[in-house]
Amino acid sequence: MATELENQVGLLEKQLKKLQASQQKDQLSIVVFSGDLDKILAAMIIATGARAMDMEVKLFFTFWGTAMLRDKKKSPKGKDFMSRMFGFMLPKGSTQLKLSKLNMCGMGTSMLKGLMKKKNVASLEEMLATAAELGVEINICQMSMDLMGFKKEEMIDYPNLKYVGVGSYLADAGDSKIQLFI
Amino acid sequence: MATELENQVGLLEKQLKKLQASQQKDQLSIVVFSGDLDKILAAMIIATGARAMDMEVKLFFTFWGTAMLRDKKKSPKGKDFMSRMFGFMLPKGSTQLKLSKLNMCGMGTSMLKGLMKKKNVASLEEMLATAAELGVEINICQMSMDLMGFKKEEMIDYPNLKYVGVGSYLADAGDSKIQLFI
Amino acid sequence: MATELENQVGLLEKQLKKLQASQQKDQLSIVVFSGDLDKILAAMIIATGARAMDMEVKLFFTFWGTAMLRDKKKSPKGKDFMSRMFGFMLPKGSTQLKLSKLNMCGMGTSMLKGLMKKKNVASLEEMLATAAELGVEINICQMSMDLMGFKKEEMIDYPNLKYVGVGSYLADAGDSKIQLFI
Repeated sequence: MATELENQVGLLEKQLKKLQASQQKDQLSIVVFSGDLDKILAAMIIATGARAMDMEVKLFFTFWGTAMLRDKKKSPKGKDFMSRMFGFMLPKGSTQLKLSKLNMCGMGTSMLKGLMKKKNVASLEEMLATAAELGVEINICQMSMDLMGFKKEEMIDYPNLKYVGVGSYLADAGDSKIQLFI
Repeated sequence: MATELENQVGLLEKQLKKLQASQQKDQLSIVVFSGDLDKILAAMIIATGARAMDMEVKLFFTFWGTAMLRDKKKSPKGKDFMSRMFGFMLPKGSTQLKLSKLNMCGMGTSMLKGLMKKKNVASLEEMLATAAELGVEINICQMSMDLMGFKKEEMIDYPNLKYVGVGSYLADAGDSKIQLFI
Repeated sequence: MATELENQVGLLEKQLKKLQASQQKDQLSIVVFSGDLDKILAAMIIATGARAMDMEVKLFFTFWGTAMLRDKKKSPKGKDFMSRMFGFMLPKGSTQLKLSKLNMCGMGTSMLKGLMKKKNVASLEEMLATAAELGVEINICQMSMDLMGFKKEEMIDYPNLKYVGVGSYLADAGDSKIQLFI
């Protein structure tokens, strides 16, 4: 009789451990696909907010988003023609981003930046610095780097910048309570 | 022997309670960032569909999305110049929204609205009314309100409209089985 | 004494089963709303990557996304005027998609396609074939089909293409560890 109960409890223990292992962590995972100022602002506000609440935060920059992570003071040599073309057409760094709407040749973008200053909302550059301090993890899609011909030496200085593939993103996202595509 | 088993069972009970407490609810959380007719339609169709399946639904309107929640019959006084400018450039209420693509000076948007009527798909205004009836919860990003200079007295009449910050959104999203950014 | 413990264990067992039943599966659910080449590429890369990691993958094509699933070799008869108009204005099949940015009358789109070929990134057509082989499940929003006047006989050949409603999407998404809206 007792051994039957013991077996039952042992089985419960195993199942419970399995459940615990597969549980999603207090973690936020965002694919930053967009290269628009407004959308990246939203991503950074959510990311720094989550870190302030002590959640782990993993950003995965891909496609247009990667262009924002270039440092405008760095100019790597040895790019082929297509890479130079792409590099030239895309915004270089966060200060060159535009709004997805109402850009109106830059007037809307300037207006928003003016409003943000006036209302004491941190600029994107300040947010990136805060994100680095708070420990927001930034991963960059290696395939996007290859496609657009970006080189590691032209990216911004950021703690532990990692270059990863879609498998790494999926593993992180599966472990995260919250997943967004922005 | 028996006490050992009792302790084991007590421990299991505690771990199980912890698991239950951290479990995500049958709840849907959507960030409505976009101000495009098509995307907001998608958000409202998913939201009302989820309520019909008895899920809790929490919408978090931010950035361009907030403009849609203004009531075109209300005109608050005392706005500064920038706020008036922004207010003027953004669509006021759901009837002024445009498609993200194929707008073609309004023709595409009219065509879609005509098609929706013909095929008995509810208009956005009807969907908002249904959402209110079904108990879809609408939260508005306070920071967006401040940035765009919108005032609470110009927003639509909707039951329990709340003005919240990113922390409140993250808490809701973490509790939700499904989270989307639209 | 023993029976009390037995009852306790029995209760634990029930609660554990309930937890297991409500647990999200190793499954990815994506709403493919966008009709842009870049965004659909991102969706397909994530989807095939997830299948390669043995996750279940359920795509839900809606709105602009559905246009991509039309077969350009098929031309169904008997459409009304509005449906023919919509069908004409929307891209027919994956080869006609454009970039969401930098399209520049097709030059940007051609450049990207050229780069993808050069860097050995699979084209969208190849990715769809891979997705079919790997068992990525494609569901199409029935309401979008109705709205845009698309007919089942003009859609691409894909294994087990299903036409579903928002309820079916929500059930799948609620069961999925990762949910995205692209």
